[in-house]
Amino acid sequence: MVDAAALDHNLAAMAAALPGPRMRPHVKAHKCSALARRQADAGHRTFTAATIRECEVLAANGLDDDILLANEVLDTTRLRGLHVTVAVDSEATIDAAAANVERVLIDVNVGLPRCGCAPEDAGRLADYARGKGLEVRGVMGYEGHVVGLDDRAERERQTAECMERLLAAHKDVGGDVVSAGGTGTYDINTWANEIQAGSYALMDTAYGHLDLPFRQALYVVGTVISVNQQGWAVADCGLKAFGMDHGNPAIVEPAGATVWFLSDEHITFSAEPLPRIGDRVKVVPAHVDPTVAYHEAMHVVGADGAVVETWPIDMRGW
Amino acid sequence: MVDAAALDHNLAAMAAALPGPRMRPHVKAHKCSALARRQADAGHRTFTAATIRECEVLAANGLDDDILLANEVLDTTRLRGLHVTVAVDSEATIDAAAANVERVLIDVNVGLPRCGCAPEDAGRLADYARGKGLEVRGVMGYEGHVVGLDDRAERERQTAECMERLLAAHKDVGGDVVSAGGTGTYDINTWANEIQAGSYALMDTAYGHLDLPFRQALYVVGTVISVNQQGWAVADCGLKAFGMDHGNPAIVEPAGATVWFLSDEHITFSAEPLPRIGDRVKVVPAHVDPTVAYHEAMHVVGADGAVVETWPIDMRGW
Repeated sequence: MVDAAALDHNLAAMAAALPGPRMRPHVKAHKCSALARRQADAGHRTFTAATIRECEVLAANGLDDDILLANEVLDTTRLRGLHVTVAVDSEATIDAAAANVERVLIDVNVGLPRCGCAPEDAGRLADYARGKGLEVRGVMGYEGHVVGLDDRAERERQTAECMERLLAAHKDVGGDVVSAGGTGTYDINTWANEIQAGSYALMDTAYGHLDLPFRQALYVVGTVISVNQQGWAVADCGLKAFGMDHGNPAIVEPAGATVWFLSDEHITFSAEPLPRIGDRVKVVPAHVDPTVAYHEAMHVVGADGAVVETWPIDMRGW
Repeated sequence: MVDAAALDHNLAAMAAALPGPRMRPHVKAHKCSALARRQADAGHRTFTAATIRECEVLAANGLDDDILLANEVLDTTRLRGLHVTVAVDSEATIDAAAANVERVLIDVNVGLPRCGCAPEDAGRLADYARGKGLEVRGVMGYEGHVVGLDDRAERERQTAECMERLLAAHKDVGGDVVSAGGTGTYDINTWANEIQAGSYALMDTAYGHLDLPFRQALYVVGTVISVNQQGWAVADCGLKAFGMDHGNPAIVEPAGATVWFLSDEHITFSAEPLPRIGDRVKVVPAHVDPTVAYHEAMHVVGADGAVVETWPIDMRGW
């Protein structure tokens, strides 16, 4: 369930802070072309994707002015003919890109132990890519180990360190694009000229406890199916309804509920008073991205509680 | 990817230990009607399901001789006309069952804080159900807090305690069925006359470290997309490919790899020597049920490594 007012607020707040192409929404956080269209309506016509299927679905919906596949891929066959710029961080991924696409960014490791070349190797890879006939649009580097830090001063300090590495690489690479950032650093990362935020649209408890102006917009709605007078109740949404890597989701309705644990199709919780069988619970995921990937659709709900639209989560899978 | 030989071994081992209706395979662990058919071919024509959709897909594939929906539901509309027995643990769930189905089991709480009535209340609920015109086939009670205990003696002791509660309830309820158990207690739980095991077919690391005769049959296969000479590599399967509630999955190929962490579409790991870009990794999920729920299909692989069949994971969603 998506709270229409909260989503509208989030989209407007981001568009005000980072208008147009200053913001390159990351669709991996919602996997929903209808929501991507709302982001485009808010002025952001450039998108970030994590998978080839996300690129394909954006393109099938006319949202392919400028897609960045911010991930390395070794088989680019399905990208042929799409307006996609691909992240590369090795000769092998450049060779794969050269086979089917025209434009790349050099992905630079800025501190998170994941993809990205060493900053000092970026210029060499850019030359190699240009030698393969590719347009090198610039650099990207994701400070993923920083975006979730509680303390804003620490987030600022570490973002600066990361972006120093990225700008050093950019000096060697050239091109117009310096792409980085996420929801947790959208207003901190002023070194990048475009921000790859995704979670801000729907939000989750991981980002919800930071000092951000975005509201919780996504809930999983469950139904209480069992109540035990020893002091717990069970609703019908479990491990197959929530990404669990950030821990348990949080029940916000009924207020004051405490989540005990989840099973495949159950969430066991206590609340004072105990709910009744048939009551609804509203549950906020700890991590929105792997949560939406379990669901087939989002139901957008207006102020009166009625469903106004249903949006397929059409970018699932690979 | 499903290792055909390991799957065959697991199905045969279970069919030998618990032939025919002594075993009621739980489809929530694989969500795949083609695999359920293999279980039926091994002699088990009764099935356990956790969701209404699982019941519907079993029925649509002719696997509905006797389905047990081992979960409470408040809207049984979609079950009308199916050969489904429904778990009930309250007057509300009995009323819901009476509207559309003919047969129920009384779900008894045997110690896990989840669904199930108090053992001493089971007889009253059975009477209530019979008063509503329902056939009460017996009882079920899942010792879910026991099935994963490392120490077999402790598993035996606690299973006995749980089943004492279930048999007390059964005395008051009547009926032929005493349904309980899981993969971790399939050969321990001799009180129940049918066992609801699911994980044994494909297995995962959580069950893999117990003293069970079942082999790992399910793997997620990823491709190394980035290698960092500082000492790590990244493959392209992440949080959206694995149920994470039991922690990180384990890489078994390359042997000796250590998983560092997962991101939405990445698994970062170290290995000695480091793999090369393009190498495949074989990854074993920590928990199979929420892992299969992320995927669209299983590819069954024979001894020569070739895919011999592709099975849709057709029971996903609700």
